Amino acid sequence: MSKQRLPATSTLVEGILSGDRYLLSRAITLVESQLPMHRELARDIVAACMPHSGKSERVGITGSPGVGKSTFIESLGQYIASLGRRLAVLTIDPSSPVTKGSILGDKTRMTGLSQIEGVYIRPSPSGTWRGGVARMTRESMILCEAAGFDTILIETVGVGQSETAVHSMTDLYLLLLLPGAGDDLQGIKRGSVEMADLVVINQADGDRIAIAQQTQYHYQHALHFFPRREDGWMPRALLCSALQQTGIRDIWASVTSYFQQMKENGFLESNRRQQARDWLLESIADTLNRQFMEHPAIRERWPEIEKAVLENRLSPFAASDLLIEAYRDRPV
Amino acid sequence: MSKQRLPATSTLVEGILSGDRYLLSRAITLVESQLPMHRELARDIVAACMPHSGKSERVGITGSPGVGKSTFIESLGQYIASLGRRLAVLTIDPSSPVTKGSILGDKTRMTGLSQIEGVYIRPSPSGTWRGGVARMTRESMILCEAAGFDTILIETVGVGQSETAVHSMTDLYLLLLLPGAGDDLQGIKRGSVEMADLVVINQADGDRIAIAQQTQYHYQHALHFFPRREDGWMPRALLCSALQQTGIRDIWASVTSYFQQMKENGFLESNRRQQARDWLLESIADTLNRQFMEHPAIRERWPEIEKAVLENRLSPFAASDLLIEAYRDRPV
Repeated sequence: MSKQRLPATSTLVEGILSGDRYLLSRAITLVESQLPMHRELARDIVAACMPHSGKSERVGITGSPGVGKSTFIESLGQYIASLGRRLAVLTIDPSSPVTKGSILGDKTRMTGLSQIEGVYIRPSPSGTWRGGVARMTRESMILCEAAGFDTILIETVGVGQSETAVHSMTDLYLLLLLPGAGDDLQGIKRGSVEMADLVVINQADGDRIAIAQQTQYHYQHALHFFPRREDGWMPRALLCSALQQTGIRDIWASVTSYFQQMKENGFLESNRRQQARDWLLESIADTLNRQFMEHPAIRERWPEIEKAVLENRLSPFAASDLLIEAYRDRPV
Repeated sequence: MSKQRLPATSTLVEGILSGDRYLLSRAITLVESQLPMHRELARDIVAACMPHSGKSERVGITGSPGVGKSTFIESLGQYIASLGRRLAVLTIDPSSPVTKGSILGDKTRMTGLSQIEGVYIRPSPSGTWRGGVARMTRESMILCEAAGFDTILIETVGVGQSETAVHSMTDLYLLLLLPGAGDDLQGIKRGSVEMADLVVINQADGDRIAIAQQTQYHYQHALHFFPRREDGWMPRALLCSALQQTGIRDIWASVTSYFQQMKENGFLESNRRQQARDWLLESIADTLNRQFMEHPAIRERWPEIEKAVLENRLSPFAASDLLIEAYRDRPV
């Protein structure tokens, strides 16, 4: 971005709306930028694209490192493209030192998919996780929708916040597991299995087919312990081998029937409205909190008050009252 | 409270610390009061009791209406009391018009338990759910701990926020289900089954024993789909008949072994520290949010901006920026 002259906002917007990949990428780079000038441009571009967004089907894909997300997306993506659908793939990577390497790996592995006409792949910027990454991904998604993609896959490593973020910006939440599930759930947030709309047991090939079937059977029974859903959808477990490209067709059939059902019963729309409201409330709360935490009076008193709370000398509520008072008494 | 002269704060605190039920009840009434004068007294009392709190074992019990929570607590409570342990039972009831009747019902049904020496029962105030109810319950818990109770049971109908609140103020989270589980999970928050430390299948009596055992078996397998826990605890499903008082002893043995393990590995302590920090952060966030939402500039602009977000004309982030600006520009 730095070396090239920045196209005008109107050029970028028109480019996005006409489906120009190069201009879409440049706009997403603005969305991801930390520079105030870029952020302002990004705001205008997103605002202009908003009315043209919302027509894609948004699918979140999560799973622990090592379950084969990239290969799965490669296979599923090729199938989606073969149906003539335009596909965008976005990734959120809460790049810890541990997983950092995987970004490059993903890029390399998805080269096959990225060369297919109608497929657009955009890895997230590296760096440690900040709430900002969720905002960037959501805004990138809006730009992709305005560019006319039919399906948007948003991929994340199922670790910590990124998982919740993906769940709160997609219509369908797909959890990828290995046969014999359990061990690979390590690091996945408690409560997240219950949020999955589809569970896909990957690597169901060779001598692992039997154990994969058993895993599928157990998951189907586990479902009885999940609260019945208002939207009427019954989550299912499906088998696949991303490597051997088996099971992909059935998975896509389930995705399709999910979207059909959610569109018919109005839950797709009401879920999105709820998500938009949640993002609004969350964004406000984040800003208020950040301003509070960065306030000199709070920075000064926080360590001592937090310590008193942790040592059971002060109730959290009394501590909160004290800090709020300090905040009000000394405006910046 | 209104008809009787209010004892001095020091009298109330000393009374609580000496285990005086009558003064404990009057202090809890202050904690539950909406009057600013009472709230201030309550704050002093809670502050004085804080250093004497934290020694009880805190058990949260949740389940849908109709699974027999009151009868279960009656049975479990009698067993706990028979071991010579002092027991306090607090309830959170997000009294919707639908469940309102159940409070009186609970009070009546628990009469047996309340007459036992060493047992203290305190139903929550009625009224609609507010965040305030969680604060009240947590403060009442602190007072009960200062009064020397060994075990505190906090009961809630497994509906909406009250469930999360109970989970965030207790050490052990017990979910009560009916044989053939599934249907009775209606209304229970998605993700909550994965948070349960113990699942108890009630009404495992008569011709329902077989189906209860099947439910237990399925739950044990469902566990393989729950992320492995850092604290090393393996959640279990147990059977009981609260009515016939079977299974209670085993449930208590599991509770005991849970606490032993959590004390030994330090997770009881670290979990409570995390909870205290969460309550502090949540209490601050709630206050900041409330002040924001009640601000005239926000009240004025909210409807139009929220509408634009819900109709996809404005991104939630841009909307948040606009509102925060309006808030900063027009201080009260």
